[in-house]
Amino acid sequence: MVIIMKSDASQENISGVIKAISDAGLEGKIMEGSQQKIIGVIGDKTKLASVAIDALPGVESSVAISRSYKLASREFHPKSSVIDVGGVKIGGDEPVVMAGPCAVESREQLFEAADIVKSGGAQFLRGGAYKPRTSPYSFQGLEIVGLKYLAEARERTGLKIVTEVTTVDGIAPVAEYADMLQIGARNMQNFGLLKEVGKCGKPILLKRGLAATIDEWLNAAEYIMNEGNPDVVLCERGIRTYETYTRNTLDLSAVAAIKHLSHLPIIVDPSHGTGKWRMVKPMAFAAIAAGADGLMTEVHPNPAKALSDGPQSLTPENYLELMSGVKKLSKFLHDENLFSYEE
Amino acid sequence: MVIIMKSDASQENISGVIKAISDAGLEGKIMEGSQQKIIGVIGDKTKLASVAIDALPGVESSVAISRSYKLASREFHPKSSVIDVGGVKIGGDEPVVMAGPCAVESREQLFEAADIVKSGGAQFLRGGAYKPRTSPYSFQGLEIVGLKYLAEARERTGLKIVTEVTTVDGIAPVAEYADMLQIGARNMQNFGLLKEVGKCGKPILLKRGLAATIDEWLNAAEYIMNEGNPDVVLCERGIRTYETYTRNTLDLSAVAAIKHLSHLPIIVDPSHGTGKWRMVKPMAFAAIAAGADGLMTEVHPNPAKALSDGPQSLTPENYLELMSGVKKLSKFLHDENLFSYEE
Amino acid sequence: MVIIMKSDASQENISGVIKAISDAGLEGKIMEGSQQKIIGVIGDKTKLASVAIDALPGVESSVAISRSYKLASREFHPKSSVIDVGGVKIGGDEPVVMAGPCAVESREQLFEAADIVKSGGAQFLRGGAYKPRTSPYSFQGLEIVGLKYLAEARERTGLKIVTEVTTVDGIAPVAEYADMLQIGARNMQNFGLLKEVGKCGKPILLKRGLAATIDEWLNAAEYIMNEGNPDVVLCERGIRTYETYTRNTLDLSAVAAIKHLSHLPIIVDPSHGTGKWRMVKPMAFAAIAAGADGLMTEVHPNPAKALSDGPQSLTPENYLELMSGVKKLSKFLHDENLFSYEE
Amino acid sequence: MVIIMKSDASQENISGVIKAISDAGLEGKIMEGSQQKIIGVIGDKTKLASVAIDALPGVESSVAISRSYKLASREFHPKSSVIDVGGVKIGGDEPVVMAGPCAVESREQLFEAADIVKSGGAQFLRGGAYKPRTSPYSFQGLEIVGLKYLAEARERTGLKIVTEVTTVDGIAPVAEYADMLQIGARNMQNFGLLKEVGKCGKPILLKRGLAATIDEWLNAAEYIMNEGNPDVVLCERGIRTYETYTRNTLDLSAVAAIKHLSHLPIIVDPSHGTGKWRMVKPMAFAAIAAGADGLMTEVHPNPAKALSDGPQSLTPENYLELMSGVKKLSKFLHDENLFSYEE
Repeated sequence: MVIIMKSDASQENISGVIKAISDAGLEGKIMEGSQQKIIGVIGDKTKLASVAIDALPGVESSVAISRSYKLASREFHPKSSVIDVGGVKIGGDEPVVMAGPCAVESREQLFEAADIVKSGGAQFLRGGAYKPRTSPYSFQGLEIVGLKYLAEARERTGLKIVTEVTTVDGIAPVAEYADMLQIGARNMQNFGLLKEVGKCGKPILLKRGLAATIDEWLNAAEYIMNEGNPDVVLCERGIRTYETYTRNTLDLSAVAAIKHLSHLPIIVDPSHGTGKWRMVKPMAFAAIAAGADGLMTEVHPNPAKALSDGPQSLTPENYLELMSGVKKLSKFLHDENLFSYEE
Repeated sequence: MVIIMKSDASQENISGVIKAISDAGLEGKIMEGSQQKIIGVIGDKTKLASVAIDALPGVESSVAISRSYKLASREFHPKSSVIDVGGVKIGGDEPVVMAGPCAVESREQLFEAADIVKSGGAQFLRGGAYKPRTSPYSFQGLEIVGLKYLAEARERTGLKIVTEVTTVDGIAPVAEYADMLQIGARNMQNFGLLKEVGKCGKPILLKRGLAATIDEWLNAAEYIMNEGNPDVVLCERGIRTYETYTRNTLDLSAVAAIKHLSHLPIIVDPSHGTGKWRMVKPMAFAAIAAGADGLMTEVHPNPAKALSDGPQSLTPENYLELMSGVKKLSKFLHDENLFSYEE
Repeated sequence: MVIIMKSDASQENISGVIKAISDAGLEGKIMEGSQQKIIGVIGDKTKLASVAIDALPGVESSVAISRSYKLASREFHPKSSVIDVGGVKIGGDEPVVMAGPCAVESREQLFEAADIVKSGGAQFLRGGAYKPRTSPYSFQGLEIVGLKYLAEARERTGLKIVTEVTTVDGIAPVAEYADMLQIGARNMQNFGLLKEVGKCGKPILLKRGLAATIDEWLNAAEYIMNEGNPDVVLCERGIRTYETYTRNTLDLSAVAAIKHLSHLPIIVDPSHGTGKWRMVKPMAFAAIAAGADGLMTEVHPNPAKALSDGPQSLTPENYLELMSGVKKLSKFLHDENLFSYEE
Repeated sequence: MVIIMKSDASQENISGVIKAISDAGLEGKIMEGSQQKIIGVIGDKTKLASVAIDALPGVESSVAISRSYKLASREFHPKSSVIDVGGVKIGGDEPVVMAGPCAVESREQLFEAADIVKSGGAQFLRGGAYKPRTSPYSFQGLEIVGLKYLAEARERTGLKIVTEVTTVDGIAPVAEYADMLQIGARNMQNFGLLKEVGKCGKPILLKRGLAATIDEWLNAAEYIMNEGNPDVVLCERGIRTYETYTRNTLDLSAVAAIKHLSHLPIIVDPSHGTGKWRMVKPMAFAAIAAGADGLMTEVHPNPAKALSDGPQSLTPENYLELMSGVKKLSKFLHDENLFSYEE
């Protein structure tokens, strides 16, 4: 933390700030220029919260400069992590694709979707059994029945299952049926849920919050890891901006940022990120070229009949074309050594 | 919903859209101009989710035009609601003020704060026993011990207690000790939590999410009300924007918007909304003048020692000055009949 | 500026940074803690741009901590400025109101509007002769003819004239006919225009840019003042956010921020700030209570026939009611000494 | 435009709206459902501005549904445009790269940069002679001297020159020395400047405004094209969001959006878009994979000495590596027919 003093701060003001810092067990160092006096604070960041520097006399403002997450940081763990989900490696040489309908609607719909997903070469089947919806009157998911259909689809296809958990009570059933638990954007700072999935023994897919900073996102991962679960995969899914043409603004620079700041794998969801099926293919290619470790995408046997999020779902034909391109592009980038991130 | 067709959409395309709408039990009406064809959809909105219009051939885009909340809307309930919390009326003629420290830190600190809050004339004591914090290493609250201190402070002062609940498991203890349960910004779309507080039998203070639209906020209220709890008070606490000078951007126009769209009372939190104690007084006055039914503000016996959010806490002196001004201003607006909203 | 070094930065890296700072004529001071090394830079800020610190080996990032504006700052000029526009004082005890139609449409419309504006007690007539419009096919203003009508309306009513200038070529005619020149939101960083109005000898009303930070806004004022024109009045008119219910999000906390950071007067435009006539009155009251020095608002003899921005224009009745309330509220705040800002 | 009536709107209200629409020479069609009445407006959009529907009795709100640009739209011109700049084709099969320093600082620096740019295979040299800077005290460019150096660098290398024009007065000199004129982000809605470059006879590179919607951006292109200049190339350079880790948020989905909505070529500037040199390569690859027609990037012989924007400039080595990768990636996408957009 750096403290900026008012230009007319007195020597007494400065002494007061230095004392408050010392009282908190930290050390303050003064830098005095002709126009400006600033005080740097050195020491254990967790003690900083107990000193409300801004309210001390003579203080203009303060700026935080260090990060509060540790286990999720690349400084702490320089080598990129590879997360193993029942044999499928996320963060390795091959891109991992998680595809399927937004919501599990029926056994028939799910099986049809699963067969398409499998035929395109994705490794994971996705599909919501518990759906967090803006309106209480929208379809909320098939719940436990949906989980059972997902498990059946795994038997049928061999695909791994990733599905969202929205409540602490839901962790046990979801962990029983799924291979990987998804924390959705709206729950990224549901800290009670984060702590509990940190104890569930299954890998976690952590979506970025609707308006979460990269720092907050990595702190959310820290909550999970701090409970003993190191297997966290991040998923960029678009952030909220003033632009209304797209449903969200897909922030692909987050891929490069995460690769620099963290060792955790990151995948990209261009379906939610744009809200338009026409944009899924170009954004999927862009994500892979940016260095993403995989994709999450919506596929529906019949998008125009989807109970939720139809406008952003791919048809089976679009999906197969996407998968073919993603595989070629990823192999090319690998063969040519065009990785975007070097450790 | 209005569907905008591509300029080169065929008659067959239009028929296809009309059929899809009919299949969903709704009615589509065509409006055809020289440059543009659009189709309006009339009927029960809850059926709309099952038709993914955008993916149909010939469709350019679609625009939602109706609201999905009902119980929270002024259309449904034209008269402004007054919420009674143990005799204190929120939404009536007098502004209701909820004041206290961000977090309960100790019995001594809380009692000292409560005495100050009481002496200024606020009706509620606020203080967090469960604190949702960005970093897992920040102070997380005294939990059940904090709740007991709050209840003791009520005994001591007669103030009503409002405190945040962050998990479903926490609802029972918080409802036992507090008069009103607060849903914080990060949990505004924690739908599991919303449903459960809808059944707890106590009034709810629902803070606006960090990047929630007014529509999403009223839908969150709808989740609570739909479970049978009509006693919801909204709290504007600043939204996330590109501006970094303030911690958030306090959206006072939300007060006027809510008064138009909903019958629920709304209060304003200028402490979190700005993150700077210097701005609390002017923004509190502005909120009252905009028509807010009350305020939530942070007061700390010694802000420079606060375990969280010190920079935005008022000193006892600032608080007393604020309360004096708020009371005079509110009485003036009432006496002069300068209400901002007329039913 | 504070430079944050990587955790594994070598002593050589640190020396390199210190040398680069010295080469630019500045001084670097090292603060070394157990977990982190940071370097503070002291000296004349204008030299900082020539050192691209972030690209030096061992540097993680850098944070700017000082302001780049001076003439506009309260540090430089602690006493609040009062701007005199032909005898009308902006920033004094009485709120100044600038009212009128968005665009000058005809002599008849303008005269009718001017009479209403006068009767309500506003001091300025506003009205656009040059209209910056998103689409080239929208009405662009009556230009020189509109200016002449404005001057005629001044003769008729005694109101001062404020109108927008959008091009360097337009400065001379606008300065000839108007009492005050307005720089619109879209031109807030049109630096060529800012420099030229800095030489025109007339007071300037500087609207905040659509997505401008407070720091950028004050720097825009600095451009004008640096050319020798000290008479700048700021106007908050809403910023661009994700919220779509309002046209913009009116940032009333900017009033409190400007009062702290600058000595310049600030007024508020609730018409553009919200885009909805229903919200103009509550937001006008809120602006005055927040400490604004005045208001700008749209009034139209017949809003439903306005050539631009009708939905946010007040009817004559609404306007008169607004003015009555604003005057009472302002007098009350003054009499009760409830000013939001104390020097 | 679609008009949403209040639920309690009377038959008289509806007739009033229909009449106002007719008076403006347009036609209104009523759609009446059980819960909702809406009125669609059909006809020439340019007449719509003269009807302020929202202020009419019984109207709740209105929603615009059509676009106001025409010449820039793909509907009007279905085939993708290729812009020829002195023989270099933008929008064709090969990606066009514009590289160079942010600002022209000296003949020596520019020549050194130009030689590097040339050796990497870019087609354009970029470099600012007129620099729009937030603070009036920052380096503002070498102006006419800078233009002459750019022209000399063209002689030396054969590279085309693109440079920013910031004022109407600057158009003639910039058009004399440069091959392509750049309109910067801060001037995207400087309509006077847009109109004048529409008459200058040279191709225009139009950067997206800091907080411009895609619709506003295409309308800005329309201003230029409407003056007779069809040669407009768009440049995505990041938008302003709440995220502070990056300087801006690079919106690569804008590439896909523009390809759908417009026939104009689009390039991407990952240097300004991220503000961090470490992110330039991954974002450049991503832009190409998303379907961008080229790139603009900052290269500086010695980024740590750059007079502006050093932190985002590539070193010569980084630049050459980037160019090699971009060429391979683009060829691969072309050979494999993995284009993101199909007409």
